[in-house]
Amino acid sequence: MKRKVCVVITARPSYSRIKTALVAIQNNPELELQLVVAGSALLDRYGNAVNVIESDGFDITARVYMILEGENLVTSAKSTGIALSELAGVFDNLRPDMVVTIADRYETLATATAASYMNIPLVHIQGGEVSGSIDDRVRHAISKLANLHLVSTEGAGERLRQMGEDPATIHVTGCPSIDIAAEVRARPQLDFDPMERYVGVGSEVDLSAGYLVVLQHPVTTEYQDARTQALATLHAVHDLRLPVLWFWPNVDAGSDGMSKAIRAFRETVKPATIHFFKNMRPADFLRLAYGSRAVVGNSSVGIRECTYLGVPVVDIGSRQRGRERGANVVNVGHDEKQIRSAIEQQLKNGRYPINQLYGDGHGGERIAEVLAKAPLIFDKTFTY
Amino acid sequence: MKRKVCVVITARPSYSRIKTALVAIQNNPELELQLVVAGSALLDRYGNAVNVIESDGFDITARVYMILEGENLVTSAKSTGIALSELAGVFDNLRPDMVVTIADRYETLATATAASYMNIPLVHIQGGEVSGSIDDRVRHAISKLANLHLVSTEGAGERLRQMGEDPATIHVTGCPSIDIAAEVRARPQLDFDPMERYVGVGSEVDLSAGYLVVLQHPVTTEYQDARTQALATLHAVHDLRLPVLWFWPNVDAGSDGMSKAIRAFRETVKPATIHFFKNMRPADFLRLAYGSRAVVGNSSVGIRECTYLGVPVVDIGSRQRGRERGANVVNVGHDEKQIRSAIEQQLKNGRYPINQLYGDGHGGERIAEVLAKAPLIFDKTFTY
Amino acid sequence: MKRKVCVVITARPSYSRIKTALVAIQNNPELELQLVVAGSALLDRYGNAVNVIESDGFDITARVYMILEGENLVTSAKSTGIALSELAGVFDNLRPDMVVTIADRYETLATATAASYMNIPLVHIQGGEVSGSIDDRVRHAISKLANLHLVSTEGAGERLRQMGEDPATIHVTGCPSIDIAAEVRARPQLDFDPMERYVGVGSEVDLSAGYLVVLQHPVTTEYQDARTQALATLHAVHDLRLPVLWFWPNVDAGSDGMSKAIRAFRETVKPATIHFFKNMRPADFLRLAYGSRAVVGNSSVGIRECTYLGVPVVDIGSRQRGRERGANVVNVGHDEKQIRSAIEQQLKNGRYPINQLYGDGHGGERIAEVLAKAPLIFDKTFTY
Amino acid sequence: MKRKVCVVITARPSYSRIKTALVAIQNNPELELQLVVAGSALLDRYGNAVNVIESDGFDITARVYMILEGENLVTSAKSTGIALSELAGVFDNLRPDMVVTIADRYETLATATAASYMNIPLVHIQGGEVSGSIDDRVRHAISKLANLHLVSTEGAGERLRQMGEDPATIHVTGCPSIDIAAEVRARPQLDFDPMERYVGVGSEVDLSAGYLVVLQHPVTTEYQDARTQALATLHAVHDLRLPVLWFWPNVDAGSDGMSKAIRAFRETVKPATIHFFKNMRPADFLRLAYGSRAVVGNSSVGIRECTYLGVPVVDIGSRQRGRERGANVVNVGHDEKQIRSAIEQQLKNGRYPINQLYGDGHGGERIAEVLAKAPLIFDKTFTY
Repeated sequence: MKRKVCVVITARPSYSRIKTALVAIQNNPELELQLVVAGSALLDRYGNAVNVIESDGFDITARVYMILEGENLVTSAKSTGIALSELAGVFDNLRPDMVVTIADRYETLATATAASYMNIPLVHIQGGEVSGSIDDRVRHAISKLANLHLVSTEGAGERLRQMGEDPATIHVTGCPSIDIAAEVRARPQLDFDPMERYVGVGSEVDLSAGYLVVLQHPVTTEYQDARTQALATLHAVHDLRLPVLWFWPNVDAGSDGMSKAIRAFRETVKPATIHFFKNMRPADFLRLAYGSRAVVGNSSVGIRECTYLGVPVVDIGSRQRGRERGANVVNVGHDEKQIRSAIEQQLKNGRYPINQLYGDGHGGERIAEVLAKAPLIFDKTFTY
Repeated sequence: MKRKVCVVITARPSYSRIKTALVAIQNNPELELQLVVAGSALLDRYGNAVNVIESDGFDITARVYMILEGENLVTSAKSTGIALSELAGVFDNLRPDMVVTIADRYETLATATAASYMNIPLVHIQGGEVSGSIDDRVRHAISKLANLHLVSTEGAGERLRQMGEDPATIHVTGCPSIDIAAEVRARPQLDFDPMERYVGVGSEVDLSAGYLVVLQHPVTTEYQDARTQALATLHAVHDLRLPVLWFWPNVDAGSDGMSKAIRAFRETVKPATIHFFKNMRPADFLRLAYGSRAVVGNSSVGIRECTYLGVPVVDIGSRQRGRERGANVVNVGHDEKQIRSAIEQQLKNGRYPINQLYGDGHGGERIAEVLAKAPLIFDKTFTY
Repeated sequence: MKRKVCVVITARPSYSRIKTALVAIQNNPELELQLVVAGSALLDRYGNAVNVIESDGFDITARVYMILEGENLVTSAKSTGIALSELAGVFDNLRPDMVVTIADRYETLATATAASYMNIPLVHIQGGEVSGSIDDRVRHAISKLANLHLVSTEGAGERLRQMGEDPATIHVTGCPSIDIAAEVRARPQLDFDPMERYVGVGSEVDLSAGYLVVLQHPVTTEYQDARTQALATLHAVHDLRLPVLWFWPNVDAGSDGMSKAIRAFRETVKPATIHFFKNMRPADFLRLAYGSRAVVGNSSVGIRECTYLGVPVVDIGSRQRGRERGANVVNVGHDEKQIRSAIEQQLKNGRYPINQLYGDGHGGERIAEVLAKAPLIFDKTFTY
Repeated sequence: MKRKVCVVITARPSYSRIKTALVAIQNNPELELQLVVAGSALLDRYGNAVNVIESDGFDITARVYMILEGENLVTSAKSTGIALSELAGVFDNLRPDMVVTIADRYETLATATAASYMNIPLVHIQGGEVSGSIDDRVRHAISKLANLHLVSTEGAGERLRQMGEDPATIHVTGCPSIDIAAEVRARPQLDFDPMERYVGVGSEVDLSAGYLVVLQHPVTTEYQDARTQALATLHAVHDLRLPVLWFWPNVDAGSDGMSKAIRAFRETVKPATIHFFKNMRPADFLRLAYGSRAVVGNSSVGIRECTYLGVPVVDIGSRQRGRERGANVVNVGHDEKQIRSAIEQQLKNGRYPINQLYGDGHGGERIAEVLAKAPLIFDKTFTY
């Protein structure tokens, strides 16, 4: 009797954080994968991650539309309510032996609540970390609902023990996103032209002499500032006249403001050195990041994969506040000058040494092993 | 500028746990009360708590219907999704300065999530406690979302500090339910006939020679057993031939099973010594409990108010597992013989001394003071 | 390639109106039945019709919980919204070639809207009739959405043509409920004891000397009067001292009021001649109706099956206003005296002759034939 | 006691069809306007009609987010379910004396259902017309729910009588959109530069030598073709090398496909003569249409306002099929050559004479008069 593992992916970045684990689950004879794709991962204007997932060879077991348009705080909350209601129906149909939720996006709390309220053991990937914004409390609330914790770092495991989670349920597996980074590091050469493969919009840029990668999300607790924050980064990287590959943000309160900023900037400034992309396969994105002179923005990729890869990172604002990171990361405020000067500093520094803080490249396999072997006990108590 | 305090009450027992705080908020010149009544508190077949609330002189600011009928695990999860979506709309209209959620029922996580996702500071009453069932993880998940913790016991505060909550945000106020218990203790005489005031159904029972009070809820993680569990208690108390006042359970997965058990028992056994009630004013209920020879079931009233009042309690099953309690509480399994013998033991023992574990009778006032004075900071970080 | 026929049943009475068609669909080699059971048909406190359906040998393809508790006008509307959203998901999974909706309950508009908006040909059973209450406009709105109309009477077909429906899409099949009535008429003897088979609550009643059957629903446009209306009928039938079999109403705005009236009447009047039932198999119910001296209330059974069977009917209030009926039906207001005197008149009259206004006993077969053969064209235009 | 009139606007074009009525309602001493803005009218990426409404001086009474992202048939149905549930809550708060719904977009059936199920008299503007697509059955279903019909043409009134609507409830007021057209006709000169006032994207185009206006929506029953259909029109107008003002489509199943087509066309063809706009004030849009050499697409503006104004129209595809129209409208299929040749024919023909088929310029005033004076009767019956 195989264990049915239901993994819920709600956004593009969650996919790269779980992909190698999905492969390992599929290859494990004791496990059966049920893959639910939901939220912005289904939407064209956020890169249609579902297409990438399918072309990677995964079957989609169920699709869940859950995003109520509006991109403000009310619609974020209502979208979570819709997700909770829809996922309860999906779990009722699929009858999984466990549900896996990833990280800390607002809608992942819906996955966690639906599973918990239906007496299905909940597995949380990447709990125990600390960052800024609402993500932090979402992540910790999920941990208090979860039955099994598959964490990236020793520090994260330690924090879960402090929070009263049973040590027997905490496994330091490393983050599967590092598995992809390890593959990239093994074969680092850029074997494709991103503008050819992914089209995107904006100027043709020449990557041969070095380039920047930007990935910046709106911060939900500061969503009214999304527009200004995007403009600060846009102007900073534009001023440097280096080629820039800019990646579109996740759907979130504030992403409309950010999209508007980018569109307006394109129409008015007509930047000759910036090319804009939506979704990209995780490995392709990381290869571009690894080949870049610096990664700029507030994505956790800067903290996690880039720490492993030793890529210089300029982390902007509060979104990753408190997250463990390597020496490769410099943090600055949402200020054009600060951003520009931090990039210049990182350009001077160049590549940093490898750092296995978030994993050693075998996270996916370890996760599948734990899912196949760990006792599945729904009941839980506070551990002192 | 008064602080607008939005309190969400979703069930009958939550009202008795907050009532004296509502009075104190209303009387505090720095606070404005916004009272949202939701869920089973609006429903006739669960005692229409909203009528009690209104007759106590409170204005209802908004009513939120959120319970999807079915009383199984899927509908519990979907109901929580509906609650989350509806409450987001209510908070958007009311624009409160803070939202107060009470204790640990499944739907309170919807209140907590809606407030958190809308950047409204969240106040959690009765966090940090430990009990059995799903309530435990709901309570702790809410604590990780909350900005201000108003707890009942020193132990609860200690546990929140362990979980990484900032000590500056934790206030040991005592539980407002003890305030009502203290009033009852001050004037203990039974000044009304419960069958006359609340009608109910079942036999007329004579309370003058001593009686039992029963309040038993279905346990959501064991909801298929609700029927058997109810029957064990029904038979145990019926065998003793003592007069019994039996109170109807909360709406929950399993309450249909329990209702069915009660109806079948009434139709077949036709018990001559049991009278069944739905809702009752908190003070009236406590006066009956204080006057009883023992309180039987799995309600937290047995642990909290009865510990203060020194009433002998037979606590059945896992629902209150782990909760701090006084010497007055005996725990047994869902077994007719165990229950009967524990009741007999408590009848022999008689009244226990007063115990201020859950409060000293001034919880409501302290809560209002904290709500009026505490800094309202939405941002929060993990505290080591 | 079989045509996949998705039939959505949302309430107990809809099942008896479609049962013989379900059998005929199942037996038709060109059709595949997908049976969706929803709403009050899933709920214990409204007779759990789903159990009857399963014990009749049908497989349930999907269950849809959709009733938001509250039983007022707001929750009726919101329940319909939930039904629409849930059914869209179900149709997306099942990919039927056509969706069948029955009659005119408020939630059937959700079925019709979901199918229409998903480009699935919609079949409407029992369109074109005229009655009172909100049912009338629900029924006609559904007809304007439907692609295929399977009607009970010539008059109904005529009305649909007037409304602009294409005559080629209108088929007078007769009502499947008459099929069951025809079977009952063929073997009319009461071959079971209803109190033994269905238990129910209330007094044991002796049926041998003649009895009344009562089936009364709340009227949604007059839902605040549900309680008074129930009491008028309760007092009228109680005054006559004849044995009465009383059937519980459908879930609807007002059913709480009606239930409360019944409970209060039972507790106070303690009627010795009334037995109360919830659900019953259609054939058993009709056998009881056929054996009764009169059917009282406002159910369409009185108008449809009883017209065929020639059972004397006292139809109360506006609910069936405008519906075609035989000479066996007397209409009165919600007034105790009027009701009592109409019953007395019908008792004097006795049985009426058979009347095939609503069908000849072969409705189910004809429906299956049409579903197998009719062109399935989603596009439609107004026909002059 | 003023009559409270709740008007629900769910999309940009509905606003221009009701604007002068809103003014007249506001000016009528017997009426109080409650304005609910919902759906795509609230969304940035569909032109944020709510901003136009507010800058026209109207107060928004409530905002209803209801669009579930996905833009496919399932999400259209689910969005309607959400709208129904949300609007029920809004009507419960506002307690209007009547609810006004406009025309035939899919989500307007939610407005109609919510009002009907809450016993609120429903007013339908623009019922009785005939067109293609799903709009037709939505419109007629709403008419069967409505209590008061304010129609644009005599033919529409006649059709409602045929459908069984009471003639006393049908008022031929003319369409308020013609009121704006009449104002434009009175002062036809283009007094603003559209690219300056509304920015938009695409090439600067010179309007002085004549230009085309294009407004094309996806057709929900053919939504998979949205992309191809958009491309046929894009190529046809581009081939003519005339300046083109192209207006973005409504949010609907298929609009993503259409947006993608437009974006791809812009990136690859880089058209030098097409400028793209989102929302525009109705009067500004009509002034541009009136000044154009032809209006192309499938918008009802081509049929209604342009018939009044005598502007040559090339109507593409089935969306307006069956709708009454003047001699100014030529219909063609979604075929590049047909479209181009029809435009050329219209360019040769030039302006047509005024035609009052859809109104005489006083529709808004007449609507307000009827709303103030007509009997408000919720009950309705089929009229033969």
